[in-house]
Amino acid sequence: MRKSKFIKSLLVILIIGATQVRCAQQSSQEDDKNAIIAILNTQEAAWSDGDLEGFMEGYWKSDSLKFYGKSGVTSGWDQTLANYKKGYPTPDYIGKLRFVINDITQVEENSYYVMGEYHLTRTVGNANGVFLIIFKRINGEWKIVADMSCG
Amino acid sequence: MRKSKFIKSLLVILIIGATQVRCAQQSSQEDDKNAIIAILNTQEAAWSDGDLEGFMEGYWKSDSLKFYGKSGVTSGWDQTLANYKKGYPTPDYIGKLRFVINDITQVEENSYYVMGEYHLTRTVGNANGVFLIIFKRINGEWKIVADMSCG
Repeated sequence: MRKSKFIKSLLVILIIGATQVRCAQQSSQEDDKNAIIAILNTQEAAWSDGDLEGFMEGYWKSDSLKFYGKSGVTSGWDQTLANYKKGYPTPDYIGKLRFVINDITQVEENSYYVMGEYHLTRTVGNANGVFLIIFKRINGEWKIVADMSCG
Repeated sequence: MRKSKFIKSLLVILIIGATQVRCAQQSSQEDDKNAIIAILNTQEAAWSDGDLEGFMEGYWKSDSLKFYGKSGVTSGWDQTLANYKKGYPTPDYIGKLRFVINDITQVEENSYYVMGEYHLTRTVGNANGVFLIIFKRINGEWKIVADMSCG
C-alpha cells in the first residue's frame, strides 16, 4: 500500500516536471531569438561607430571560427578581424550598417541559423549583400561560429 | 552483502558504458563526415544525370527546409525543387555538377555545416559559386535543412 502511494506520487511529480520542461522549451526559443537579435543590434551599432573590434564581439573568439566568402575560408577570430580592417580601412569605408533579418531557425538545442541582409550606407558607395550565420551557445553566451557573406 | 555486490556490478557496467560512449563519439565524427560526403557525391551524380528530384533527395523533405539566395528565402522542399526546375529547364542548363568541399564542421551532436563550391560545366556557359549548408540527422538520416548559395 505504501509502495503504491509512493509510485503514484512519483508519477505526479514526473508529469508536472514534463509539463514544465515543455513550457520552458517554448519560452526559451523566444528568449534565444531575442538574445540573438540583441547581439545583431549591438553589432550594427558598433560597426556604425567604426568599432570593428566591438562588432567582432558577436563572433566566437576562437581559432575555430570560420568565415566563408568568394575568396575562400578564413579560419579564426584574429584573421577575420584583420580581413575586416583591411577591407574597411577608414570610417568612410566602414559607413553605417543595417541588418535585415529574414529568418532565425533553431538547429539543435544550443544552435540557431540566421539568414539576413547587410546594407552599408557609405560616401564611397553603398554595399549590400546576404549572409547565413550560425549561432552557438558557448558558456551561456550566443556567439557566431560560422559566417558566409556574399556581396 | 548481496546489495553491495549489486551496486559494484552496476558501477562496473556504468564505467564500461561511459568508456564506450567516448570512443564511439570520436569515431562517429569521422563516420558522420563520411556519410555527409557520400550524400554530396550522390547529389553530384544525380544532378549530372539531369535528375533534379534525385538531387533533391539530399534535402529535408519538409516545409521547414530553407533555401537562401539573393532573391530571398525559399521555404519548403517542393518550392525549392520548383525553383531548380525553373532555373535549369533542360539538360543543357543542368550540365555536369562538381562540388569542392572546403570545410565540414560539427555544430552539435546531430548537426554539421559544410562550406563548399559548386562548379557547373555546361554548353550554355559554365556557372560557379559557393555555398554554406547545414546538415541535420533526422530519423537517423543526414539531410540538408538550410542552404545558402551565391553565384
